[in-house]
Amino acid sequence: MLAEIIAVGSEMLTPHRQDTNSLYLTAGLNDLGVIVAFKTIVGDNRDHLRSAIHIAIHRADIVLLSGGLGPTEDDLTRECLAETLSRSLHRNEAVYESLQKRFVARNMDMPPNNAKQADQIEGAEILPNANGSAPGQWLDFAHHGTRKLIAILPGPPKELKPLFDTECKPRLAAALPPNHMARRQLRMALIPESQVDARTAPIYQQFRDVETTILAGHAEIQLHFICVKPTLAEAEARVEAVSDAVANEMGDDIFSLNGESLEEVVLLMLGVRRQTLAVAESCTGGWLGQRLTSIPNSSRVFLGGAIAYSDRSKTALADVPSYLIEEHGAVSEAVARSLAEGVRRRTGSSLALSITGIAGPATPRGTDANKPLGLVYIALTDGEDTQVKEIHIPGDRERVRLWATQHALEMLRRHLQ
Amino acid sequence: MLAEIIAVGSEMLTPHRQDTNSLYLTAGLNDLGVIVAFKTIVGDNRDHLRSAIHIAIHRADIVLLSGGLGPTEDDLTRECLAETLSRSLHRNEAVYESLQKRFVARNMDMPPNNAKQADQIEGAEILPNANGSAPGQWLDFAHHGTRKLIAILPGPPKELKPLFDTECKPRLAAALPPNHMARRQLRMALIPESQVDARTAPIYQQFRDVETTILAGHAEIQLHFICVKPTLAEAEARVEAVSDAVANEMGDDIFSLNGESLEEVVLLMLGVRRQTLAVAESCTGGWLGQRLTSIPNSSRVFLGGAIAYSDRSKTALADVPSYLIEEHGAVSEAVARSLAEGVRRRTGSSLALSITGIAGPATPRGTDANKPLGLVYIALTDGEDTQVKEIHIPGDRERVRLWATQHALEMLRRHLQ
Repeated sequence: MLAEIIAVGSEMLTPHRQDTNSLYLTAGLNDLGVIVAFKTIVGDNRDHLRSAIHIAIHRADIVLLSGGLGPTEDDLTRECLAETLSRSLHRNEAVYESLQKRFVARNMDMPPNNAKQADQIEGAEILPNANGSAPGQWLDFAHHGTRKLIAILPGPPKELKPLFDTECKPRLAAALPPNHMARRQLRMALIPESQVDARTAPIYQQFRDVETTILAGHAEIQLHFICVKPTLAEAEARVEAVSDAVANEMGDDIFSLNGESLEEVVLLMLGVRRQTLAVAESCTGGWLGQRLTSIPNSSRVFLGGAIAYSDRSKTALADVPSYLIEEHGAVSEAVARSLAEGVRRRTGSSLALSITGIAGPATPRGTDANKPLGLVYIALTDGEDTQVKEIHIPGDRERVRLWATQHALEMLRRHLQ
Repeated sequence: MLAEIIAVGSEMLTPHRQDTNSLYLTAGLNDLGVIVAFKTIVGDNRDHLRSAIHIAIHRADIVLLSGGLGPTEDDLTRECLAETLSRSLHRNEAVYESLQKRFVARNMDMPPNNAKQADQIEGAEILPNANGSAPGQWLDFAHHGTRKLIAILPGPPKELKPLFDTECKPRLAAALPPNHMARRQLRMALIPESQVDARTAPIYQQFRDVETTILAGHAEIQLHFICVKPTLAEAEARVEAVSDAVANEMGDDIFSLNGESLEEVVLLMLGVRRQTLAVAESCTGGWLGQRLTSIPNSSRVFLGGAIAYSDRSKTALADVPSYLIEEHGAVSEAVARSLAEGVRRRTGSSLALSITGIAGPATPRGTDANKPLGLVYIALTDGEDTQVKEIHIPGDRERVRLWATQHALEMLRRHLQ
């Protein structure tokens, strides 16, 4: 069974936006043993969209369309699919009512143009969308004697992903021969891709029935293992074997054997040890706090901290003595140490992390000219002992700031281990 | 003139890799006034690739193919293009010799399969590749009476980009009528896409020579206007006219007329007024600070603040009296007000923003059962007057947190205006 994914939207034909839904859909199709043979990106243009749909139905067995289900004039997917298949569109009253209820619940009147989101293609099933106004639709029919499965899905990833998982995957699975896929995801922070590849390729290359992908980005390396077998037990045994062998080689460079993020791992370790954490951030300006609090229930171990961006806020919020800043500069080992110790005392946490550095693009006025862009100090204290690390991070402002938060989390993880 | 970009390579049909060359090629084509109408991604499969090329030549005037020019069995672009056009391939001796020289220069014997990189399509021009072994090729011919321009380009971005710029752009410019493109980008926060569309579509639809795209996401709406004209002055005049008319309708809902982000706009406004800002964040955990400090030179106006996540940290870092938290709860108007006022006094800023809310997925222990998920209080103080807003944000944890930061920035922007 071959699949084609069509992403609909003129914004994806600009230099600024890319289709990313197809990556998620591809993973889901692969889980079911389906190969994606074509991806097409087409704009909000009636002729172009109809032609793309026509071609896809001829060359693929499964066609997934994303986007173009909104309320605007530009949203044409429903109409164009109906026209291409010579089917009618009719208003589904139940969908129409639930659309109206969404607006009432938000104390808004439904604009008249939203009504077309309730239009159903003749012979299609409605796929309810729990996270947005536009439902998906599903078609299963014979075309010149071949079975065709077509889904139209809303473009926003938060709507498309759950809708695909809950509504499309079961329908696809029922239509396809049984296949089982197992996956593992190993994650490592702050290590070069070439080093990971040199050490692990001789291992994973021995597992010819396991598909291995190395992904690098966001200050970490991920190793993905995928295996498809007639039974889940066979597939699981193979990915288990390869990930055990790789874990044995990479040791505690690996922070996660099951895909958890570094912030999740650190919060879990703190929870198990019944310890709490506070942070004091200068150049990262709240990013470390933002990462930690992105995880539900982080309030059990994360207490908060100081965004100690200006010199005065370092003193006012983390009790850094101003003479320390005058003597050593805001980006210094002494200030990093004082930030961590000060915020720990203030918040009453068991542990505290601090970050101070020069993120660029320019060196701030008043900074020692010998201190280069990318210089960052990270401190970790438990109230008795304080460690400080000096690191040099190449790259632009965003990279320096992201890597600084990653170094801080990794320093804490290794301390807890 | 319509263009299609075909990215060739099976790796781009996995969940892990994406075509990114097309973004660069699109920007280059747009510079010349050419619109990209379709993008296709196809694997290293002879039938699929021939079919994709065949379709592209029919529906587009300009076809750019990237990838599939390497030396392996899987590299099929040259052959498939020749076959689709019913043209022969012949060995180009000059290219062959320069390939051999590349290997000699690296003290290597040229593997026999590299020879096919010297195969030239009948009637094609060779496009020399200074950064790799595979040259590009260029075809310019009439097809059913219509001029077609086709380029095949190597896949690695560091080879493709300079080759496209130095070899393709001049050839395209010579073949195309003189064209200039002007762009505008209007941005609005916290407003539904359907409302923006209902109010602005009657305006922008009158500008038939301006291409309008509405993008929604990250708690904002962007309106992109693009116009292509023989002279830049004409193109600029048209995008100016449409954006003025739309700005007139949307008024101060628009925070940017030139694409700046909301945090940039707010920092600029503060700088002009010589005012400074501090923040106190509970449920957003540092995200507001992270957004503000992502902008270079934010330290001129942003002083820092408190990640007041736990009750104790609200008291320890922003001087919120504990009786207020006991009496009203951490998520309350009174605590929002006290957080903003406290952090302003601490840091000595002119203005301060605070956020406290329930981000979910569950309501924290000890929260008043009447307070729903998504309830957020935002306060803004200038030391004399403090405003507090109660808002209700639907959606998951990430959405509640992002929208809370957006509401805070937008409240500040409207105050400064």
